[in-house]
Amino acid sequence: MSTYSTASSPGHSGHPLAEGTGTVTVLGLGPMGRALAGALLEAGLRTTVWNRTPGRDRELLDRGAGGAASVAEAVAASEVTIVCVVNYDAVDAVLRQDEVATALKGRTVVNLTADTPARARDTAAWAAAHGVRYLDGAIMTPTTTIGTPDAVFLHSGPAGLYEELAPVRAALGGSHTHLGEDPGRAAAYDIALLDIFWSAMAGYAHALAVARAEGVSATELAAFAQGIGAILPPLFAETAADADAGTYTGEGNPLTSAVSSMAHIVHVSEEHGIDAGVMRAAEGMARRTIGLGHGEDGFLRIAEVIGRR
Amino acid sequence: MSTYSTASSPGHSGHPLAEGTGTVTVLGLGPMGRALAGALLEAGLRTTVWNRTPGRDRELLDRGAGGAASVAEAVAASEVTIVCVVNYDAVDAVLRQDEVATALKGRTVVNLTADTPARARDTAAWAAAHGVRYLDGAIMTPTTTIGTPDAVFLHSGPAGLYEELAPVRAALGGSHTHLGEDPGRAAAYDIALLDIFWSAMAGYAHALAVARAEGVSATELAAFAQGIGAILPPLFAETAADADAGTYTGEGNPLTSAVSSMAHIVHVSEEHGIDAGVMRAAEGMARRTIGLGHGEDGFLRIAEVIGRR
Repeated sequence: MSTYSTASSPGHSGHPLAEGTGTVTVLGLGPMGRALAGALLEAGLRTTVWNRTPGRDRELLDRGAGGAASVAEAVAASEVTIVCVVNYDAVDAVLRQDEVATALKGRTVVNLTADTPARARDTAAWAAAHGVRYLDGAIMTPTTTIGTPDAVFLHSGPAGLYEELAPVRAALGGSHTHLGEDPGRAAAYDIALLDIFWSAMAGYAHALAVARAEGVSATELAAFAQGIGAILPPLFAETAADADAGTYTGEGNPLTSAVSSMAHIVHVSEEHGIDAGVMRAAEGMARRTIGLGHGEDGFLRIAEVIGRR
Repeated sequence: MSTYSTASSPGHSGHPLAEGTGTVTVLGLGPMGRALAGALLEAGLRTTVWNRTPGRDRELLDRGAGGAASVAEAVAASEVTIVCVVNYDAVDAVLRQDEVATALKGRTVVNLTADTPARARDTAAWAAAHGVRYLDGAIMTPTTTIGTPDAVFLHSGPAGLYEELAPVRAALGGSHTHLGEDPGRAAAYDIALLDIFWSAMAGYAHALAVARAEGVSATELAAFAQGIGAILPPLFAETAADADAGTYTGEGNPLTSAVSSMAHIVHVSEEHGIDAGVMRAAEGMARRTIGLGHGEDGFLRIAEVIGRR
């Protein structure tokens, strides 16, 4: 049961923050949307929830969230609307309706949906054209971190609006960084960081397949996989300045040595009938970079070569 | 200046371990070979070095290593020969010569060259056929770790031989693990772990190119990249048992959500004219897995699908 039902209910006096940025609507109740709404409720913010497919709000309503029969009703219930759906096609389907735009006028949308920087900028432009205050954002950590110190949020858009939203940020927990006024900036960081993450995960999934074919279980590999994973964060830190300066010293680990490893991985995979498309593509980038005369450089020289039009 | 020159010199009395597993030859003086020889010298082991291209031994000779005019002379100088060259084609070129096989008879080869498990097994068979004691291995950490506690070595082959080599292992520093009697096992772990590493690095190089195209520097991205990297080791640990059991719970992060991210990465890359072949291949594996009915499963279900012949 909900302690209040919709915006048409009178203010819920039991809440410490019944008005302003203390009233929040969450559109989209996938695993992440549910986690966000749960954290807001936990923090005592008056929270209204909506999802395209009905039924996903049950547990949140039981915990005190307000329900809504339509998007317009949901966004009218709060000063701030957080959108967390699958992509910006879904955002457009939810927000770009006349009655929703009307209900949002003068209110704030915080769009935590992941998509491209260009889509974020386009949505910001739509919001500006409709008198909607707009902040774009990205969530960099799993659902289980939401409401805890481990959550990581990135934001971009008007700095003043970002400041105003301090109570909402506090309720969501974790660390929040405002990356600048360009609304596409959070998405740009998000894309780059997910690029690292999903490439690594693709490598891990592939490694498990290769290991299994060689009679090595994931559990046997785990301690060593953790060791390899632990090399990455300091390597990212150490190489950043070199990458920005365009000096890619390959001392001790030239590209020519990297492609030798990559070729072995492709070879073993294909001996076992395992698709090696990811490593083939990575090897291709490396060989293209070597072909341009950078064989003695470090691996990150690749970034410069593939970034050239 | 070398404190002794070759095997034809009389035993060098100044060394604490002048015989047995305390005399070591290093074949291959690339960055890793030089690091290995340096650590052996540092530990006081009588060390002989050889490299196909002359001149690479200069600094090691100055530090007290013995030089050798040929591979046969080099391997005859020590009870243990460590081989660290670019791949097993190079190993074959170095070892599979009549006079080298003759000189190695009854002695030990520790092959720390990286290649495939099949090549390791083949080299072990060649060694057995020529009366050469053979241990295969892999070095999992950069040259700078050699001789320090951070070095990680994997070994496979006869357990008794592995035990005998304790003085050499101690000289090389770090942690050493004997993975079993199958000589291909160290290479199997090596391939799987390098698969993770180079996939992640390919993602990182690509991420830097995408970030740069969006006006985000490597230095700006670094702190967040480290955060993403830090997610990986615990994730590898947590998912291993699930992967072995074949239960890939996608709770909170189903494959359908992963491919949505992957498609965004491809899209942004190609908007900027950046080759997205790695992510396209990873997305392809994920979509193939979804197409087989596993869309609600976790990402590692991919390992099972690509591992099927």
